[in-house]
Amino acid sequence: MVDENIDIEAIAKATSGASGAELANIVNEAALRAVRYNRDKVIQEDLEEAVETTIAGYKRKSTIISPKEKKIVAYHEIGHAIVAAKQSHSAPVQKITIIPRTSGALGYTMQVEEEERYLISKEEAFNKIVTLTAGRASEEIVFNSITTGASNDIEQATKLARAMVTRFGMSERFGMMGLETVTNVYLGGDASLTCSDETAAIVDSEVHKIIDEAYKKAKDILMAHQKELHKLADYLIEHETITGEEFMELLEENK
Amino acid sequence: MVDENIDIEAIAKATSGASGAELANIVNEAALRAVRYNRDKVIQEDLEEAVETTIAGYKRKSTIISPKEKKIVAYHEIGHAIVAAKQSHSAPVQKITIIPRTSGALGYTMQVEEEERYLISKEEAFNKIVTLTAGRASEEIVFNSITTGASNDIEQATKLARAMVTRFGMSERFGMMGLETVTNVYLGGDASLTCSDETAAIVDSEVHKIIDEAYKKAKDILMAHQKELHKLADYLIEHETITGEEFMELLEENK
Amino acid sequence: MVDENIDIEAIAKATSGASGAELANIVNEAALRAVRYNRDKVIQEDLEEAVETTIAGYKRKSTIISPKEKKIVAYHEIGHAIVAAKQSHSAPVQKITIIPRTSGALGYTMQVEEEERYLISKEEAFNKIVTLTAGRASEEIVFNSITTGASNDIEQATKLARAMVTRFGMSERFGMMGLETVTNVYLGGDASLTCSDETAAIVDSEVHKIIDEAYKKAKDILMAHQKELHKLADYLIEHETITGEEFMELLEENK
Amino acid sequence: MVDENIDIEAIAKATSGASGAELANIVNEAALRAVRYNRDKVIQEDLEEAVETTIAGYKRKSTIISPKEKKIVAYHEIGHAIVAAKQSHSAPVQKITIIPRTSGALGYTMQVEEEERYLISKEEAFNKIVTLTAGRASEEIVFNSITTGASNDIEQATKLARAMVTRFGMSERFGMMGLETVTNVYLGGDASLTCSDETAAIVDSEVHKIIDEAYKKAKDILMAHQKELHKLADYLIEHETITGEEFMELLEENK
Amino acid sequence: MVDENIDIEAIAKATSGASGAELANIVNEAALRAVRYNRDKVIQEDLEEAVETTIAGYKRKSTIISPKEKKIVAYHEIGHAIVAAKQSHSAPVQKITIIPRTSGALGYTMQVEEEERYLISKEEAFNKIVTLTAGRASEEIVFNSITTGASNDIEQATKLARAMVTRFGMSERFGMMGLETVTNVYLGGDASLTCSDETAAIVDSEVHKIIDEAYKKAKDILMAHQKELHKLADYLIEHETITGEEFMELLEENK
Amino acid sequence: MVDENIDIEAIAKATSGASGAELANIVNEAALRAVRYNRDKVIQEDLEEAVETTIAGYKRKSTIISPKEKKIVAYHEIGHAIVAAKQSHSAPVQKITIIPRTSGALGYTMQVEEEERYLISKEEAFNKIVTLTAGRASEEIVFNSITTGASNDIEQATKLARAMVTRFGMSERFGMMGLETVTNVYLGGDASLTCSDETAAIVDSEVHKIIDEAYKKAKDILMAHQKELHKLADYLIEHETITGEEFMELLEENK
Repeated sequence: MVDENIDIEAIAKATSGASGAELANIVNEAALRAVRYNRDKVIQEDLEEAVETTIAGYKRKSTIISPKEKKIVAYHEIGHAIVAAKQSHSAPVQKITIIPRTSGALGYTMQVEEEERYLISKEEAFNKIVTLTAGRASEEIVFNSITTGASNDIEQATKLARAMVTRFGMSERFGMMGLETVTNVYLGGDASLTCSDETAAIVDSEVHKIIDEAYKKAKDILMAHQKELHKLADYLIEHETITGEEFMELLEENK
Repeated sequence: MVDENIDIEAIAKATSGASGAELANIVNEAALRAVRYNRDKVIQEDLEEAVETTIAGYKRKSTIISPKEKKIVAYHEIGHAIVAAKQSHSAPVQKITIIPRTSGALGYTMQVEEEERYLISKEEAFNKIVTLTAGRASEEIVFNSITTGASNDIEQATKLARAMVTRFGMSERFGMMGLETVTNVYLGGDASLTCSDETAAIVDSEVHKIIDEAYKKAKDILMAHQKELHKLADYLIEHETITGEEFMELLEENK
Repeated sequence: MVDENIDIEAIAKATSGASGAELANIVNEAALRAVRYNRDKVIQEDLEEAVETTIAGYKRKSTIISPKEKKIVAYHEIGHAIVAAKQSHSAPVQKITIIPRTSGALGYTMQVEEEERYLISKEEAFNKIVTLTAGRASEEIVFNSITTGASNDIEQATKLARAMVTRFGMSERFGMMGLETVTNVYLGGDASLTCSDETAAIVDSEVHKIIDEAYKKAKDILMAHQKELHKLADYLIEHETITGEEFMELLEENK
Repeated sequence: MVDENIDIEAIAKATSGASGAELANIVNEAALRAVRYNRDKVIQEDLEEAVETTIAGYKRKSTIISPKEKKIVAYHEIGHAIVAAKQSHSAPVQKITIIPRTSGALGYTMQVEEEERYLISKEEAFNKIVTLTAGRASEEIVFNSITTGASNDIEQATKLARAMVTRFGMSERFGMMGLETVTNVYLGGDASLTCSDETAAIVDSEVHKIIDEAYKKAKDILMAHQKELHKLADYLIEHETITGEEFMELLEENK
Repeated sequence: MVDENIDIEAIAKATSGASGAELANIVNEAALRAVRYNRDKVIQEDLEEAVETTIAGYKRKSTIISPKEKKIVAYHEIGHAIVAAKQSHSAPVQKITIIPRTSGALGYTMQVEEEERYLISKEEAFNKIVTLTAGRASEEIVFNSITTGASNDIEQATKLARAMVTRFGMSERFGMMGLETVTNVYLGGDASLTCSDETAAIVDSEVHKIIDEAYKKAKDILMAHQKELHKLADYLIEHETITGEEFMELLEENK
Repeated sequence: MVDENIDIEAIAKATSGASGAELANIVNEAALRAVRYNRDKVIQEDLEEAVETTIAGYKRKSTIISPKEKKIVAYHEIGHAIVAAKQSHSAPVQKITIIPRTSGALGYTMQVEEEERYLISKEEAFNKIVTLTAGRASEEIVFNSITTGASNDIEQATKLARAMVTRFGMSERFGMMGLETVTNVYLGGDASLTCSDETAAIVDSEVHKIIDEAYKKAKDILMAHQKELHKLADYLIEHETITGEEFMELLEENK
């Protein structure tokens, strides 16, 4: 039932890091799409759309976003993309879009690793945080204002910074001392600190330091590439969705 | 079953920000009202009343409020309305009423955004808090006394200020560090802080600072528009419900 | 089934502030009493007794209180009543009794607002606390000793003082910052503080300050009306139950 | 089924302060005893034994306590009894025994109020704590050693001292501020502090102060009555159970 | 079914302090053993083995312990036994063994009180802790190394020291102030502190002090009896199990 | 059904420390493998593979790891192995592999004790932590970078260091004071601290100290054996799995 020409490699990369449940959802989603289009084979396009749907929700066609907010979203996404592209330990950008999704996302930047990855170095983890903070950094540089648009980035950046300090042993302060164990407590609990409140306060300040440094780096990168930022944001506002190739080309052209 | 002339746009704006469950309630409420009036079509009025019922409860005809309390409520609501109108990043006032509702509300001021909004800037969030504190500010200026009438405003203003600091990254102190994740714990829990008690104390003082500044701004605006405050409160006491247009006209006239 | 001559107004005032469940209890209680007396109509007296039963429990005829304790209770209740009467923002006294009730109350002082109230000002809230502390203040002035008789007053006064600080925005220290949300947690929980322990300690000291000031005011009022205190306590010991009118008359006479 | 000559008054006094469930147990216990002795009427003796059984458990005939421990227990109980008798606000001693009970009690001193009491003054509460600490005080004075025999006294004394500070408003430090609400949480929880940890630490030190002062007073009283202490302990070791009258007589004689 | 010559006294002493459930287990265990050996009477030996099985588990015949570990275990147990024997307030040693049991115990030293005890003095409680710490003290003196073999001793010593401070009123610091109530919470909870964190920290340091002093005393006793320690350990390694009498004799001989 | 030539001794050693449930899994696993290969006897190989499967999961044949990550994993595992081999109190290396397992492990180093062990000394516990930190130490020395590959080592090292301080009495700071009791709370709970937050903070710093010292020791050992490190890592990359004998031989050769 699955087309033989499917580029399994590409799908695998795009879904690297997805959980078993997420992969099951993607396959299911792709099969449903094939049925919807009266096809008896799942084709490449079904799988690609399924990946996006699972990550970002369905396209929300009815949502009409104002030109002002669209502009903010475009600069936000291009901020993520430029910072991702300008860092050494960072997965390449595959797609940027500002078409709202039912998940509530007003836009997103998809990065795909060049090969499947099993280890993340301290530098890579930090660079991911830099990229996550770059959306807001772009808003602040361009509009001298910040919005709630970064709240999901904040959550993800904080989780990663916290894991660096407490589970990955990536802070000078605590070294290889573990401070958190991931538990699936029925209380909806996430990761609970197994340490004293005093130690937890030091963890907080280590996490804060990482995020502040990341944000500063994101801003520095964007300040150094303002020309590209404006050109690419304009292009994105016009086209709404651009591929990684288009993005890299434009980035080169506008240097 | 729904009248074709309904101004869906207006309804959509008035309900912007409502949850799926709330929207379902509104539609249900409107249908019930149509049935009550022996109509087989839901008309504009049904929907408008339904919106209010859902937000503020049914009109509570039996409630007889004393003239003294009515005056306090009027000044409280006009306080909200004037401060909303005098701030740059603030949705226009659509209706002000001092007819008590079954929900326990003695009055309310309805604001409706001019276009659907998906992002809230730091300035807008702060201005919302200013508007929320303006009811009490008005009471204090006029009566040199404060009442429990502001307790709901206090709860909303605090929640928003807390979200600014902990989820929206809108404080200088914590920047893009997330400090709270919303959970629907079966214990009735709301948003729980994922940080140490020491950090939580700093969050408290950041939240406090925002609310104090907001209250001060609300008072400054009202002190600068005392003439309008008195004129409009008198008018509201007399008419009990006024539209946004009336309000804006009177505000202009009494400058 | 309800007599037409009932003074609904009076009942409404006496039960102002009662919850829906309490009102249902009162009506039920009144109906049962009518049945007990073989009446097919609920009369004024049924409702009045029902109001008291619901608030203070049934009269406990078997309880034989010693003359010494009776005297303490009488001074305690007259203390509440005089302080209530001598404050400007305070509901009038409707009844004072030292007949023990099954609820465990050895006596009580009933206050009824002159008109239905929806708002409580900071002064009124504080005066309520002053009245609540006046029972013990009277004991201390007269007997130079204090008893467990004030434990319920302590609980109520503390709850109200805590609400002033955390939910009504009535402290200078926290202004309009909310610190508590009422939850009906299945653990029997009441109101939980949504703040750090450090902030909770400041809340404690604010609450303490309010209660100490209230107790001082209660004592000052009673010290200034010692003659009335003794006369009224003697009268209450003799008559066991007195109406608000009797109380006010005697208070005037003994000035 | 109940004998008409029963001294209900005496039973009532002895059980004053008992809960409804405890009273039910006592009556049940008395009925069972009547059946055991083939009587169809519950007599005075059944009720008296039932009261003791409910409070202290059944006599444990098999328990053979060593002479050394018997001596410690006797001094412990006489310590309670003398301190109870030598304080002004304290219920008279009705019975002292060193016959072990199934409840684990190696002995006990029963006090019964002269009239039913509904209020406890600060002095009475403090004196109760003094009496509770007197068993150990006696052990320390006589044997210069302390034992686990006081662990139940410790629990009771601490509970009462804690209630004085947190629920009865009987500390200078907190005045009429309430700090604890009794809850029957299903977790076996007792009384939970509704305050910050900082405040809880002050509560701890207030409680500690009360208990230390009480213990000092108990020791002072016993030091001043050493002759009686030895005489009465010897007498109790010999007779194992003595009545309040015997006790008071011997106390007078040995002055 | 039970042999008439059984020394009930001896069994009773050995099981003094056992709970009802434990006694039931012992009797059951003894009956099973009689059946296993085709006897229709439970004999002394059945009961003795049953007592050990219940306390220490079945003999674990398959366990082959290395000579090196066997030596450590022997010194550990002889450490307990010598310190028990050399203290005044301490129950006599009845048996020492280094045959591993299924419970995981690699050896144990059984002490039995000379008469049934209902009270524990402060000195006795402290001496029990000294004896509990003596196993490790012996390891440290002989091997200059410490092992996980003391983990159960640590748990028991800490529990007892904690009870001394919080439930038995045996610390200078807290006197008769109770700080802990034993609860059988379904969460597996043990004894929970009913005090502030600040007070809990002082409890910790009091507990620590007791254990440190006890360990020091254990070491001092063993340092003063090194000759006996080596002789007895050698003897235990050779015989694996020795009785209290053998132990006392050897202790005397090697003085 | 089990082959008679099986080296039970070897299996027993390899599984020393496994729980009953784990042993049951291993036997089951071995039986299934025999069935899979159409054998009616479980042979040595079945058991060996079963041991590995239970500890590290099935071989994950589909996983294709990049050469760069494979190199990191090889250095990580050889780091563990060399440090294990160069410490005196440390079990010999039996196998090293960098074939990924379904459990998520990218490689592992298996150590097997020479004889069954029941006691762990302080030195041995510390050396285990040193070995656990050696994987990351190797990464840092060779690549001057650290990865998430050490997160499981961090968790295990921290658990053991925490047990040393809180359950095994192996810190100078707390001596034989117990601070943790292992509970199988249904909340997924692990070991909960039974002490104040202040004490918990000292525990944290003791744990931190142990881990930092261990990491330093691991680095020192590897710095002193860099030649072996590179030779062995190269060999492991080439062969993917090496036995303990091969490892020891190569270690000797490359000194």
